[in-house]
Amino acid sequence: MATRVGKYTLLLPSRPSIIGHAAVVGKAEGEGPLAKEFDYCYSDDTIDGCPSWEKAESALQYEAITRAIAKAKLSPKDINLIMAGDLLDQCIGTSFGIRELAIPFLGLYGACSTMALSLGLASVLVDSGAVDYAVASTSSHFASAERQFRLPLEYGGQRPPSAQRTATASGASVIAENKEDLPCVEAVTFGKIMDLGIKDANNMGAAMAPAAASTIGDFLNDTHTSPADYDLILTGDLGKVGAELLIDLLKKDYGYDISSVHGDCGLMIYDLEAQDVHAGGSGCGCSGSVVNSYIMRQLKEKTLNRVFFVGTGALLSPTSTMQGESIPSIAHGVLLTSGDE
Amino acid sequence: MATRVGKYTLLLPSRPSIIGHAAVVGKAEGEGPLAKEFDYCYSDDTIDGCPSWEKAESALQYEAITRAIAKAKLSPKDINLIMAGDLLDQCIGTSFGIRELAIPFLGLYGACSTMALSLGLASVLVDSGAVDYAVASTSSHFASAERQFRLPLEYGGQRPPSAQRTATASGASVIAENKEDLPCVEAVTFGKIMDLGIKDANNMGAAMAPAAASTIGDFLNDTHTSPADYDLILTGDLGKVGAELLIDLLKKDYGYDISSVHGDCGLMIYDLEAQDVHAGGSGCGCSGSVVNSYIMRQLKEKTLNRVFFVGTGALLSPTSTMQGESIPSIAHGVLLTSGDE
Repeated sequence: MATRVGKYTLLLPSRPSIIGHAAVVGKAEGEGPLAKEFDYCYSDDTIDGCPSWEKAESALQYEAITRAIAKAKLSPKDINLIMAGDLLDQCIGTSFGIRELAIPFLGLYGACSTMALSLGLASVLVDSGAVDYAVASTSSHFASAERQFRLPLEYGGQRPPSAQRTATASGASVIAENKEDLPCVEAVTFGKIMDLGIKDANNMGAAMAPAAASTIGDFLNDTHTSPADYDLILTGDLGKVGAELLIDLLKKDYGYDISSVHGDCGLMIYDLEAQDVHAGGSGCGCSGSVVNSYIMRQLKEKTLNRVFFVGTGALLSPTSTMQGESIPSIAHGVLLTSGDE
Repeated sequence: MATRVGKYTLLLPSRPSIIGHAAVVGKAEGEGPLAKEFDYCYSDDTIDGCPSWEKAESALQYEAITRAIAKAKLSPKDINLIMAGDLLDQCIGTSFGIRELAIPFLGLYGACSTMALSLGLASVLVDSGAVDYAVASTSSHFASAERQFRLPLEYGGQRPPSAQRTATASGASVIAENKEDLPCVEAVTFGKIMDLGIKDANNMGAAMAPAAASTIGDFLNDTHTSPADYDLILTGDLGKVGAELLIDLLKKDYGYDISSVHGDCGLMIYDLEAQDVHAGGSGCGCSGSVVNSYIMRQLKEKTLNRVFFVGTGALLSPTSTMQGESIPSIAHGVLLTSGDE
């Protein structure tokens, strides 16, 4: 049974394991530095000819989920509960992606924090004994996100250097009771909404950094640990601008220097110089795919042993931006370990 | 610790109680048959002069949550986790409504099933011991929903008789460990996505009825109970068309006749004849406000003792409708009892 330490952190004594995981990505991601880590890289962002970007995103998420379940040596009917969401209005990337699976479904909205949110919640529910097998998943698609949040690609809009590229990617994990030697989840910190008044929807990193700082600071305070106790403190997709800001905020407001152990999925998924992606990757699928490939492999190989993964999400909508509102953000943290302690 | 009975239903042996609840509504709802049940009825749908319908919806949800917390004799800092969502793109009704509360936040998207989803999940987490005090809440607003899903009100669009009116309403519950004599949650059935191919976004009731039938059928099968074991099987907002269809589907596909114990929040919140609301009420706030007022009062007074509340949600978006897609739907069930057994 989960026990709370400090004010915000849940320790999961049963240490649920990630018994299956998969990541599938689009063309640009398959040309990036992590290409070899992913389960499958599509050569075309229509994902084998889907008639719309939204349907392509659904196909991507279906693929990640079914691969993760198969890799766990299970079938969809074995799964008790799927927790998932995405960036699209009314989360249609998810609902249309999973509708054929006939798995009880808990819909989430955490913007780009969804992988950490779903993984954290699934782990708490498995730890509690309420669920034997849970799936956590998310997706994003560059073209569906651009059309919805900014402008259709055909418009050819220019983006400022602080803008990030939404990853065409999906990641899924299957969580179950502890299996020795597999990566597991030892703690979860659900975040609070932070809003320091940033209004520029082309600078999400800056909007999300305070939320990441809050969750990392709370987690370190709650567990009485320091950055040196982790091999990696991994944020979802702050990108270049947000990552620098996070390091400053954590030093100034919380007294922690994470600079030597910090990584950001948005800075890993693309080659920032060669791929013209401005400040880095973003979108639910960015951390979803990086965590469910590159990070899980290293946890399995024990080249990483303790990773605090912090998914970050900007809870804005095009409507709130047009109404002059600032960008509320949230970050959820999940302590992943290599499972052999 | 939750125990699963059958394939889909979780029994909560600790029976978490609803220690606070509140419902606040707009003008039309305050002129309906349940007016006296609500905590507060605003005389104007701007909710005291908010500059946009979206901000009005956020204000409504803030009001319901803070009232529910105060009625539980707690303050926001006592709450461990808030689970909430709404119908708006990226759930801004919720994120902007709660951002000042500084409560760890788990964002949900379940369309109009959100009250049952949040209440069910909160109860499972309290039952597991992971959380001491949880808030479950949701909201909807007639004008923000019309603008987003159909047409701005100024357009003066006509609606067919099968259409429902999105309620301007919000409901919130505070869930904690069992307190004798208060309404409590004894079981939860998270639903699967159902899609029988309905494509008419003006006939949500028909789209959602199969999901409600599936969840009610699963719950009765799992618990080996029959409709007669309940004082009320309460659906969220199927309205007139969907409610009739649900009764037929349950008879035909599952062999259960619920006609003598069935009620629907969408048929309770308005006077269908006098208020010109076509097939009834809908929107997350419809069941959110009816359950957190009228139903809770009757559970407290023991005029109702066993209520199976089934929130129903249509997981479509305007984009999926324009792309010719059908409407996937979901229903989540929560067994509410008067708590004195």
